Amino acid sequence: MTTPKRDTYTPETLLTVAVRVFNERGYDGTSMEHLSKAAGISKSSIYHHVVGKEELLRRAVSRALDGLFGILDEDGASRGRAVQRVEYVVRRTVEVLMAELPYVTLLLRVRGNTQTERWAMERRREFDQRVADLLKDAAADGDLRADMDTRLATRLLFGMINSLVEWYRPQPAGGYDREQVADAVVRLAFDGLRNDRTERSGGASRG
Amino acid sequence: MTTPKRDTYTPETLLTVAVRVFNERGYDGTSMEHLSKAAGISKSSIYHHVVGKEELLRRAVSRALDGLFGILDEDGASRGRAVQRVEYVVRRTVEVLMAELPYVTLLLRVRGNTQTERWAMERRREFDQRVADLLKDAAADGDLRADMDTRLATRLLFGMINSLVEWYRPQPAGGYDREQVADAVVRLAFDGLRNDRTERSGGASRG
Repeated sequence: MTTPKRDTYTPETLLTVAVRVFNERGYDGTSMEHLSKAAGISKSSIYHHVVGKEELLRRAVSRALDGLFGILDEDGASRGRAVQRVEYVVRRTVEVLMAELPYVTLLLRVRGNTQTERWAMERRREFDQRVADLLKDAAADGDLRADMDTRLATRLLFGMINSLVEWYRPQPAGGYDREQVADAVVRLAFDGLRNDRTERSGGASRG
Repeated sequence: MTTPKRDTYTPETLLTVAVRVFNERGYDGTSMEHLSKAAGISKSSIYHHVVGKEELLRRAVSRALDGLFGILDEDGASRGRAVQRVEYVVRRTVEVLMAELPYVTLLLRVRGNTQTERWAMERRREFDQRVADLLKDAAADGDLRADMDTRLATRLLFGMINSLVEWYRPQPAGGYDREQVADAVVRLAFDGLRNDRTERSGGASRG
């Protein structure tokens, strides 16, 4: 990839390369020189597509955030009891994370040194808060156990979900298919959170 | 702290400073110069205590590993049904993580560039494997749900536990006391994993 080649990149394909380098070296540790080498095109060719690396970061985290916020507009997230909506959102969050793995990985790793990073962190917190609100609604409905703080539960839930970026790899490299992972997260999370003992007893077919 | 001062450090107190700097800058990004500045003593004073930064790393991750492996020798980890032992180990793992927060944080962040880092990663995997074995035993006893892969459950469980290093802060800075956090992890994890619907129904007092 280091041999200079004709610039056949689109903003989209250049983004794929940039996100890989950002995840390998960290955003802070990545220079335009690194991007140029990884893409095999000159820096000025990259500047033909974007004004700089921060634009690439913004596009990359936007893709992750659009995927995540998009979930909240889906039918499953807006119809039915809160407990069903939050279960739906958790499952879809895991699915989006796996489908957009490099983009969500980058989103979870940004640390706030630039305006774009701070914006990304803020939006990510907003998403977590939307899920926390759903959990709170479900608890108010009596569908979640009452002996656990909602904010703490949200932290643990996202701790579990976000840990996927550390070890999940798409098949065939990884050992699990996406549905298996999404099922496991939902089961582990909700059979712990749910207060509905009746549904729980008969709930092996759920998910 | 940057004013040179008389070296009143013990290996123990020097370790506290080193671990803080390692966690802030990353182990790779920390030089003896950084350590000297943070401790406020000369580099040669540091060399009086240790042969170099890798010794400080080894001592730091050893402290975390000793804490974790120590759990496995406790009574609660070796007596009773596997499901009770694994529940005990999970609770104690969370407690050790919170009690030794900077040391466990460092352990979880090492990435394997030096022999000490590779050794730490290997020992950490060993610990995870011991917990996975307990989960497997508990599943064989019929005490855990049969519809979840043990290795996948172990990953999700440690994903949740290890995420604590990202947000848990000791009181009064943080909002939760240790027992509350340990209870929450055990409840979330085991009411999801456990297959014993009877105990579950009456199990609100557990933990």
